[in-house]
Amino acid sequence: MNARVSAASSEPTEIDRERLLADLAALSAIGAYKSGVHRPTFSAEDIKARAWFAERLREAGLAVEIDGIGNTIGRCSSGRALLAGSHLESQPHAGRLDGPLGLLYGLAAVRALRAADLEPALDVAAWADEEGWFGQFLGSRSFCGEVTEAEMDAARQRTDGTPLRAALAAAGVAGRPRAILPPARYLGYAEAHIEQGDRLESEGLRIGIVSAIVGMRNVIIAAEGVQNHAGTTRMAIRKDAGLALCKLCIAIDQAFPAVAGSRSVWTTGRMRFEPGEPSVIPGRAEMHFQFRDTDPAVLERLSGRLHALIEETNRTGPCRITARLRSATEPAVMDAGMQDAFAAAAEALAPGGWTRMPSGAGHDAQNFARHIPAVMLFVPSIGGISHHWAEDTSEADIVLGAQVFAEGIRRLLVAADRSR
Amino acid sequence: MNARVSAASSEPTEIDRERLLADLAALSAIGAYKSGVHRPTFSAEDIKARAWFAERLREAGLAVEIDGIGNTIGRCSSGRALLAGSHLESQPHAGRLDGPLGLLYGLAAVRALRAADLEPALDVAAWADEEGWFGQFLGSRSFCGEVTEAEMDAARQRTDGTPLRAALAAAGVAGRPRAILPPARYLGYAEAHIEQGDRLESEGLRIGIVSAIVGMRNVIIAAEGVQNHAGTTRMAIRKDAGLALCKLCIAIDQAFPAVAGSRSVWTTGRMRFEPGEPSVIPGRAEMHFQFRDTDPAVLERLSGRLHALIEETNRTGPCRITARLRSATEPAVMDAGMQDAFAAAAEALAPGGWTRMPSGAGHDAQNFARHIPAVMLFVPSIGGISHHWAEDTSEADIVLGAQVFAEGIRRLLVAADRSR
Repeated sequence: MNARVSAASSEPTEIDRERLLADLAALSAIGAYKSGVHRPTFSAEDIKARAWFAERLREAGLAVEIDGIGNTIGRCSSGRALLAGSHLESQPHAGRLDGPLGLLYGLAAVRALRAADLEPALDVAAWADEEGWFGQFLGSRSFCGEVTEAEMDAARQRTDGTPLRAALAAAGVAGRPRAILPPARYLGYAEAHIEQGDRLESEGLRIGIVSAIVGMRNVIIAAEGVQNHAGTTRMAIRKDAGLALCKLCIAIDQAFPAVAGSRSVWTTGRMRFEPGEPSVIPGRAEMHFQFRDTDPAVLERLSGRLHALIEETNRTGPCRITARLRSATEPAVMDAGMQDAFAAAAEALAPGGWTRMPSGAGHDAQNFARHIPAVMLFVPSIGGISHHWAEDTSEADIVLGAQVFAEGIRRLLVAADRSR
Repeated sequence: MNARVSAASSEPTEIDRERLLADLAALSAIGAYKSGVHRPTFSAEDIKARAWFAERLREAGLAVEIDGIGNTIGRCSSGRALLAGSHLESQPHAGRLDGPLGLLYGLAAVRALRAADLEPALDVAAWADEEGWFGQFLGSRSFCGEVTEAEMDAARQRTDGTPLRAALAAAGVAGRPRAILPPARYLGYAEAHIEQGDRLESEGLRIGIVSAIVGMRNVIIAAEGVQNHAGTTRMAIRKDAGLALCKLCIAIDQAFPAVAGSRSVWTTGRMRFEPGEPSVIPGRAEMHFQFRDTDPAVLERLSGRLHALIEETNRTGPCRITARLRSATEPAVMDAGMQDAFAAAAEALAPGGWTRMPSGAGHDAQNFARHIPAVMLFVPSIGGISHHWAEDTSEADIVLGAQVFAEGIRRLLVAADRSR
């Protein structure tokens, strides 16, 4: 770290508010849907957004690489730096802030450091497919060295089945090497994001410093019954697989509170009856069930209760229920020192207006936390709404968040410079 | 009716068993799926089946017309006749007997009458779309004069949205006139079918004479909640539309027995959560719910209870549930005289091996019952299985059913001849 950082260490950096909002408007126009966006990973809109963002990184003086899995990485010229990241793609017909906001904060921080004549020792990267269209955090896990070629060979788009390899070819990046995290280069990883819940808003707060990211279990639960005619099959002899899963949903909802933590969540996001005909008793039904907590012990308890409920159901019949773990992530604790730096920045810019809190959503930061210090910063979500086009954050909160993020980055760089 | 009928009235007609089974095998090969068939209305397989059946009707000496809605009608030269009918198309990946068996019985009866040197005063018709791919009993209702051009204009294939008009054009019948029931021509309507339930089998019986066909209500029930992130939205503030419908399903299942008849049935055949993503709380959910009974008063009670449950749910929240009646059919009583003729035939050929029973399934016969005397004859379904490719009936029962059907037809023709 050079002397320029130290010289300015007592004054908060100023981000360019108008430019931040203009960037957000421009990026939100790519794949716009109502007041949100529809940008599936490697869709035409997503590819366009990546090109747009790469150009902004270049303008900010960073050297840009789009690697073999679509990670779009802007590197500064410093030998040692912080890394800021998030994602560009969206959930289906979802909000414009989930992902992009963190990238624009990184970009704004680089510009602010430069404008303040500080060394912008900050890389900024858009990780491909955080939203899981093709897999689980493919981009950031690839950068962390956790994605094999075999996993890439097998990956398919979740709605239309397009192979990841074909999508990468269409995006023009097939065959390129995949960039790998050089741990020695990085002081740590910082990710800003909308909260996607209602805690900050309901407590009248404007900034959240994330203490830990929840772990998650995704389970596919299937019931096998007997498909039959809905008019001629007496109620008494039916083996209705759809009804069996409805009952399980209700049983879970009644049983989980007794073993859950205070912030545990559980959701049945998808339900399908087969064959799905009005006049046919479902012979098979399938649901996607998910639960999350920051405490591994709570995750274990919830998992145990789920399997006990399924065993109980199978003992009484009439259908046979099975569960298959589709994916699991472990809780990730955020770095204490990085939390403190962001907390100090928040207290300086929004005194009393911030809190430490867990993240109920998964983020790329949880993968980095296994390799380098990591931290996250949240801004409020209006009405707690996310994964929906109506998702929003007030302009004042968007700007304050960028300011706190840039200031947190500055404080971390100053501290690193001092500790040399 | 001419003297030839009377002359042979004391001996049961003999159907050609080998030819019946060969016909069944040939027809089942068109659109074969495992041991069943997949023949959506106006699919290539269905059109091929229609052509195959038209050819069999011609061979049996009938004058064949395929009309402007795809009804395939074989007419005898008698001035007054019975009408036998059923359907050729199938439910998705369903059984080979549901529909076709009744048509092959009609064909076998014509041949048997002719072979016995009796006047074959029997028309045989395959009604289009009994299985409701494009609408509700479109073919038989059209023949009964109950389908307007506007209904045809609006009809769409239920899975791929193809307009009925386009499907009729592809089938080569667009623009042809639609045949209309001449009530004065017909002594009555007779339809043989597999039971599609387990009653005959469980009681060790081989023939069912249908007393009435159930009426049915098809209701589309939707819940509106708030779509949100499955990780960040606390359980306490969720408005989960999927969970709301699961709860309603269970509430129906608990409440209906108290107001149902002994043979009432109710089914949720389809369930969809929107957007259907594992990490998104469903903001909307929709289910197709159906209930049936032979008693109009019971249908009214069930309908009342359903709406009371929905009102109750809406009072307690957190989601808003609405119900829309998609279709309704009224119970149809079968003609007593025709029932008696078929019962006498059954008693002659399977003494003590038959019963009178309601039909839990809807059939084209319910539409004819509004215009001319109608009757139905059932043969057992193995394991009560239907609307599934595993649907089956023993060869002995298939043959006996054809024999009883032909003999019932003969007795009705004899009786009509005598009453002249």
